[in-house]
Amino acid sequence: MKRSIEDTPIAIVGAGNLATNLTKAFYHKGFRIIQVYSRTEESARALAQTVESDYTTDFESLTKEAQLYIVALKDDAFLQVLPHLTNGREHALWVHTVGSLPMNVWEGYVPRYGVFYPLQTFSKQREVDFANIPFFIESNSEADTQFLCEVGGTLSKKVYKVTSDQRKALHLAAVFACNFTNHMYALAAQLLEKYDLPFNTLLPLIDETARKVHELVPVEAQTGPAVRYDTNIIDNHLNMLSDTPAVQELYKLISEDIHRLAKGE
Amino acid sequence: MKRSIEDTPIAIVGAGNLATNLTKAFYHKGFRIIQVYSRTEESARALAQTVESDYTTDFESLTKEAQLYIVALKDDAFLQVLPHLTNGREHALWVHTVGSLPMNVWEGYVPRYGVFYPLQTFSKQREVDFANIPFFIESNSEADTQFLCEVGGTLSKKVYKVTSDQRKALHLAAVFACNFTNHMYALAAQLLEKYDLPFNTLLPLIDETARKVHELVPVEAQTGPAVRYDTNIIDNHLNMLSDTPAVQELYKLISEDIHRLAKGE
Repeated sequence: MKRSIEDTPIAIVGAGNLATNLTKAFYHKGFRIIQVYSRTEESARALAQTVESDYTTDFESLTKEAQLYIVALKDDAFLQVLPHLTNGREHALWVHTVGSLPMNVWEGYVPRYGVFYPLQTFSKQREVDFANIPFFIESNSEADTQFLCEVGGTLSKKVYKVTSDQRKALHLAAVFACNFTNHMYALAAQLLEKYDLPFNTLLPLIDETARKVHELVPVEAQTGPAVRYDTNIIDNHLNMLSDTPAVQELYKLISEDIHRLAKGE
Repeated sequence: MKRSIEDTPIAIVGAGNLATNLTKAFYHKGFRIIQVYSRTEESARALAQTVESDYTTDFESLTKEAQLYIVALKDDAFLQVLPHLTNGREHALWVHTVGSLPMNVWEGYVPRYGVFYPLQTFSKQREVDFANIPFFIESNSEADTQFLCEVGGTLSKKVYKVTSDQRKALHLAAVFACNFTNHMYALAAQLLEKYDLPFNTLLPLIDETARKVHELVPVEAQTGPAVRYDTNIIDNHLNMLSDTPAVQELYKLISEDIHRLAKGE
């Protein structure tokens, strides 16, 4: 009988937002999760129960039976545990899930390694559907890259092979498109609060702004006073922000930069 | 027979994105649009035909029969035409649709005036559904405010009375939530292009970032390296932006500001 990709024994290191979402998604696709590691017993047990797997809070007891180890930890946590993970488990393929770290952080630890990077913002409060989330794959062998692409392909329609440099650029682009965008929402919310207005009046505008770039490239979708650098409105807005100098400076620089792009520079 | 609000004869000044979207919406709700003005004959005729109204390109021929004149022009265009509009039409209620201009720009021209401000980004390429778009209403009499709220209420479930100061704050908040957000998309797009990656890989992240603030306030929804000011990642990103100093400076200031809000300042 031909073994299918879902029979690959997988161990998951981590039980945070990404680890939880990813492990559940694998489980629902019929994968065999044989163990979950977390230093927090409660998190390890809860996730392990959901996916009918073993769990441990101790590196010594980390299973040696997995063929694929997915370390779904944030960059700093990953780098801390890295020296304690792989000893005695060098037979397997090891991947991390971090956008900001190069693939070669694995070098010297294991012979087969790679990266399995889903580009999305994960939170405990919301379960995400992986079907539309792009996965960016990298490994140090053609065969393992192919294997990881197949694993990713069971979860998502969008699986891409990339280089470490490309993945770094994706992570930086995601900081702009997600974290910095969310900060623009936060500054808008702060302002509305000051004027006794509810933040939810902005939601249709926020939604339409996101929808627009499905059809138009962002530079073409741009509107507002900064495009033609309308000094009247801009000065007026800068005045309104005079009690928050950091925000005022941001308003000025972003407006100048919008104008720069609109001129095609 | 009781006259209904839809029988109010309306004239529309303007045939741009907002004017077009708004006029069609009124028409579909059964309002009587008696004339469309635009200085561009083609735009005036096209819109007038769609809503079965008269049109003109000449202020002299602007109808004197309307009871509500809606001037759906951008701020600078509106201020230019304002002195030519109202003469002989002082009986009617006049409103502009601009977020950035106070109500009292009408003062000295007509006795009954106000503002009818829909908070949304309009583009020729996309038709918007007004049902969820908030309208912000202001006028110089209680009766006309009530009337404008009823008119707005035929198009949208969300109609708010606001002061000119509140509307200015809404407009500024919209610049952050729409124009500045879109600029973050544009900078992400520029970066991905440089690394040969398609912009559409970011769309699921962009959508989720917008969806998240329907459930969490933006400060709580924030993730990424700037929250704890992760110097390793941030320095790395700043390095990657060294060939675009303006964008590098923006990255630095926004990250600092995210950290400021995360600390609760």
